[in-house]
Amino acid sequence: MTKDRLIYLPLGGAGEVGMNAYVYGYGAPGKERLILVDMGVTFPDMDSAPGVELIMPDMTWLEERADRLDAIFITHAHEDHIGGLGHLWPKLKARVYARRFTAAIGRLKLEEAGQPADTITTVEARPAVVEAGPFKVQFVPLAHSIPESAALIIDTPAGRIVHTGDFKLDRDPVVGEGWDDALWQGVADEAPVKVLACDSTNVYSTHPGRSESTLQAPLTQLIQSAPSMFVATTFGSNVARLKTLAEAAVAADRSVCVMGRSMKRMLSVAQETGVLTVFPKTVSPEEALEIPRRNLMLLVTGSQGERRAAAAALSRGKYLGFEMREGDTFLFSSRVIPGNEKDVLRIWNSFSEMGVTVVDDTDGLYHVSGHANRPDLEHVHRLLLPDMLIPMHGEHRHLSEHARIATEAGIAARVATNGMMLDLTGEVPVVAEHVETGRIYLDGTVLIGALDGVIRERIRMALNGHVLATVILDENDEPMGEPWVEMMGLTETGLGGRPLAESMETELTEWMDRAGRKLLRDDDKMEDEIKRIVRQVAVEEIGKKPEVTVVVSRLVAE
Amino acid sequence: MTKDRLIYLPLGGAGEVGMNAYVYGYGAPGKERLILVDMGVTFPDMDSAPGVELIMPDMTWLEERADRLDAIFITHAHEDHIGGLGHLWPKLKARVYARRFTAAIGRLKLEEAGQPADTITTVEARPAVVEAGPFKVQFVPLAHSIPESAALIIDTPAGRIVHTGDFKLDRDPVVGEGWDDALWQGVADEAPVKVLACDSTNVYSTHPGRSESTLQAPLTQLIQSAPSMFVATTFGSNVARLKTLAEAAVAADRSVCVMGRSMKRMLSVAQETGVLTVFPKTVSPEEALEIPRRNLMLLVTGSQGERRAAAAALSRGKYLGFEMREGDTFLFSSRVIPGNEKDVLRIWNSFSEMGVTVVDDTDGLYHVSGHANRPDLEHVHRLLLPDMLIPMHGEHRHLSEHARIATEAGIAARVATNGMMLDLTGEVPVVAEHVETGRIYLDGTVLIGALDGVIRERIRMALNGHVLATVILDENDEPMGEPWVEMMGLTETGLGGRPLAESMETELTEWMDRAGRKLLRDDDKMEDEIKRIVRQVAVEEIGKKPEVTVVVSRLVAE
Repeated sequence: MTKDRLIYLPLGGAGEVGMNAYVYGYGAPGKERLILVDMGVTFPDMDSAPGVELIMPDMTWLEERADRLDAIFITHAHEDHIGGLGHLWPKLKARVYARRFTAAIGRLKLEEAGQPADTITTVEARPAVVEAGPFKVQFVPLAHSIPESAALIIDTPAGRIVHTGDFKLDRDPVVGEGWDDALWQGVADEAPVKVLACDSTNVYSTHPGRSESTLQAPLTQLIQSAPSMFVATTFGSNVARLKTLAEAAVAADRSVCVMGRSMKRMLSVAQETGVLTVFPKTVSPEEALEIPRRNLMLLVTGSQGERRAAAAALSRGKYLGFEMREGDTFLFSSRVIPGNEKDVLRIWNSFSEMGVTVVDDTDGLYHVSGHANRPDLEHVHRLLLPDMLIPMHGEHRHLSEHARIATEAGIAARVATNGMMLDLTGEVPVVAEHVETGRIYLDGTVLIGALDGVIRERIRMALNGHVLATVILDENDEPMGEPWVEMMGLTETGLGGRPLAESMETELTEWMDRAGRKLLRDDDKMEDEIKRIVRQVAVEEIGKKPEVTVVVSRLVAE
Repeated sequence: MTKDRLIYLPLGGAGEVGMNAYVYGYGAPGKERLILVDMGVTFPDMDSAPGVELIMPDMTWLEERADRLDAIFITHAHEDHIGGLGHLWPKLKARVYARRFTAAIGRLKLEEAGQPADTITTVEARPAVVEAGPFKVQFVPLAHSIPESAALIIDTPAGRIVHTGDFKLDRDPVVGEGWDDALWQGVADEAPVKVLACDSTNVYSTHPGRSESTLQAPLTQLIQSAPSMFVATTFGSNVARLKTLAEAAVAADRSVCVMGRSMKRMLSVAQETGVLTVFPKTVSPEEALEIPRRNLMLLVTGSQGERRAAAAALSRGKYLGFEMREGDTFLFSSRVIPGNEKDVLRIWNSFSEMGVTVVDDTDGLYHVSGHANRPDLEHVHRLLLPDMLIPMHGEHRHLSEHARIATEAGIAARVATNGMMLDLTGEVPVVAEHVETGRIYLDGTVLIGALDGVIRERIRMALNGHVLATVILDENDEPMGEPWVEMMGLTETGLGGRPLAESMETELTEWMDRAGRKLLRDDDKMEDEIKRIVRQVAVEEIGKKPEVTVVVSRLVAE
C-alpha cells in the first residue's frame, strides 16, 4: 500500500504576478483528493499577445482530474484571483467557496458567462469550516487592497497549511478587518503550521508597510488645497481608498461623483454585502455638472492608463459632459503596474498640456501598497513558525528572494513555479513531479492555446507586413492572367518610387513564364517559390521580409 | 522693412524624450538664416510602431528651407541626438559641427549610410568659435553620461543663447570635463544670457544630482565581495561608468572582458579620440573562458533588456561560450527607461532561475543619472540669470514643470512643443507660428510617414487577424468555382468545432448564388459585401472582427 501524501501544485501565479491558481491534494499518489485555490487571469499586452482579451492558466491537468476536485476556494475578488471563474469553471464544475463580497463578485462573473451563479457558497470567516474531502478549510480575514481578502487555513491529515492569499500587515485598514497578531498567534497555537504558502509580491520592499489609514490626513489636505475641480483615480476595487477619498472630499466641501463602470460596481457590491457601511452620498454626472468646480471631486477608473477607462477619456477631451481645465488637479492614488508606464504617462502629459496639476504617488503620501513588505513577511514567519515556506504570488525573482530570507531564518523553503508539484508530506518540500502547464487566451469569445500559432502569426504580420499572392491556373495547368499581389502593412513604393506590388508581380510573371509544366502542377512547390520571390523583391526594394500567403486557384472544367 | 527676428523651433524632443532636433533662426521673417541643433532618433515599440527600426522627426519644414540652413551642430553622441544623422543628413546637406568624440561617432554613422563622412568638421571647445550665417557658436564642455557632451553658446545679433544639450552638475565626472561654476559665471559675465534652452529630463527629481565618482567605492566593494563571476551591464556609451567598473574589477583581481558591439565601439572611439586615456587591459571572450570565474568580470550590452544584446543572450543560455551559473552576480548599473520594464524583468527572472544574484540601482548605489536634477537646474538658472527660459528635452509634464519653477524664479519661461515656433527677439518668448511636424519611420530600409497608414494596418492585423477572400469571375461575370478564404492570425475552428474558413466560404457561396448580375459586375460593391459577410461570420463564430482583403479576379478571354 502506498502512503498518502500532501501535494501542492501551482498552475498559475508562481513565477509571475497574475492568474493565480494553486492546487492542493491529499491521498494516495495519483489518487489525491484535490482542491483549487483561486482562478485568476492576467492581462495581455501588444508585445506578446496582441488582440487577446484575457490570459488564463491552462487547466488541462485539473480538468482531466475534475472527478477528484472537491472544491474551489476564492481568496478575494481581484481579477488575478477570480477573473477566470466565468471561463474556467465550466471545465471543472466543483463547488466554489468564498466570503460574502467575493462571492457576490463571483456570482456576477458566472452570470455574465451564462453559468449558474448558485454554484458559489458564501462562507463565514473562521471559526466556520468548509469540509472538502480530506480538507478542512477556514477563511481568515486579512487586510489587502480590496474588501474581505482572506487567508485560508487548510487542515489536512498531514498537518496545517496556511495559504495567505494577498495581504498586508495593516492594523487599521479603513474598511474591513485589520491584521491581528493575537488571532494569528492563536492559529499557530491551535495546531503547528506545517506549510506557509505566502504572498511574495513586495519582498524587495525593505521598509515596513504603511497602513491605509495613514493616507487620510495627506489626502484630506491635498483635496482641501486644490483650487478647482479635483479628480482622483485608483483601482476600482480599492473600496477603502474610495472611502478615504470621498470622505476627504466631503471634509473639503466637495460633492463626490463616481465615474467608470468597474468602480461603481465594486462600490455597490460593497454596500449591498455590508462590507461598506458608511460612504458619503454621491451625485450623478448630470448633477455634478451643476456644481461649482471648487466643490467637486470626481472618482474615476483608469489608474493604469487603460484607454477605455474614464481617466484616459478625460485626457482626450470631453467625458460625460466634463472637460479638464487649467487649475484642476488630477491625482493618481495608485502605483503603476510594470508595463503600464507609457499609458499612464500619456494621460499625465495630456493633462499637463491642459494645464492640469497632476499628482502621483512619488512622495509616498497618496498611495500605499496592498502587499506585505519584507519586514512584514519576516514578522509573519516568526509568528507562525512554519516548518516549510512556499513562496507564491510573484515573479521568479520574488519567489527566490522570499525563499532566501525564509531559509536564512531556518525555515525549509522551496521555490515552486507553475507546473512544479511539491510533496509536502515530510519535513521538507520535495519535488514530486513536473506537470505540463501553460497559458490559454480568451480571444474574442473563444479560448485558444498560447502555443496554437495564432498569436505568433499576428505578431509576424505586425512586424513584417503581409503579402497575398494569387495565381490562377486552368485545367491544363496553364496560368490564366498574371499573378496578382495585394499588400497589407507594407509601404506601397519601393526603390526609385516604383510600386512595390508591381515589382513583385513582374518578377512572378517572369518566373511563371519560365516555370516548367511539372512545377506548375505542384501546388506546394509553387507556393514555396512564390513566397521566395515575393520576399526577395521585398528585401531588395524595402529591406523587409513580409509574411506571404499564396492562393493557387485551379479552375476545373465544369 | 520688416525687422529681423530671432526664432526657435523644435522639430523633435520637445514634448517627448527622444529624437532631439531644434532649429534657431535669425533674419527677416520668413527669410531667417537657420541652424539645426541635433538630429536624434527615438526607438519604436510594439504598441505604436511594430516592425519599425527607428523613429525620426519629420524634417519637411527644414528640407524646404535647406538653402537657408547654414550649419548643423551635434551636442553629443547619444542616439536621441545623433542617431538620425545618416538618414536625415542627405535631405539637408549642411555642414555638421561636433566635438572630437561626437564627430568620430557621427562619421561612422554617415559612412554606414553611404554618406560623405568629411561633411563633419571637428570643433574645439570654447573659446573656439564656429561662424554660421548670423550665428557665432561655441561648444562648452559639460558632464553627461557620455564623453564630450557640450552646451552651445549661440551668439546672435539679438543676444546670447545658451543651449544646454544634455548635462548634469557633476564636478568630478571620472571621464572628461566637470561642471565649472567659474566658467559659466564667465559666460554670463561676458554677455548677458538672453535665452536659456535647457534640459528638463530630471526636473521631478528633487534632490541634488550625485557625481559619477560617488559610484567608485560602492562598485568596488560590490565587485570585490562577489563570490564568483561578476557581470555588469550599463549603457555602452557611458564610458566613465565602464572605466569605473573596469577599474573596480582590476582592484578586485578580476580580468575584464567587454561583450557587445556598441560597447566595444564606444570604448574604441573614446580611446582613439583621446577622451579615454586610462582603461584597464581587457581580455577577449576566448581568453576569458580560461580565467577562473572568481577572477572575471564581463561588461555587457543590453541594460534595457534589448533582446539581441549580450545581457539577454546570457539570460537565454550560452553566449560566446559563457553561461551564467549559480553564485554569479549580475549588475544593472543603469536605470530602466519607461517602457522597457518588462524586457528588463524578463532577464532578471531568467537569471533568478539560474541562481544568479541580480543587483540593480534600487539602493541608488550603483547608478547615477546623467541629467541635472531640480536643485541643479535652479542653480544654473541663478548662475546664468537668463531673460527667458525655454525648457526642452522632456515630455510635456517635464517642460511644464521646468517652466513653472523658472517662472517662480522670475524668468520669462514658455513651453514650446514640437512645431511651435517662438519669436525670442523681445523681452519674452512669443508664439510666432505653428509648423506642421511629425514623425517618420525607418521601416526596413525605407522612410515612411507615421501617418501613411502602413503601421495602422499592421496594428489592425495584430489585433484582429487577417482574412483573404478570393473570388474568380469569368468574362460574363459568372463566378468560376467557389469563393476561397485564407486566414492568418485567427483560430481555425469556430463554434461547435466547425472550421471557420469553411463557414465563411459557405456564407459567401450562398451570397454569390443569390447575387444579381449587377452586383457581380461591381468590384467595389462585391468587395464591401464580401468583407461584411466575412466579418459577420467571424463575429458570430469567434467574436472577432478581422481585417479582410478581397481579391476579385476577372478572367478575360484572351
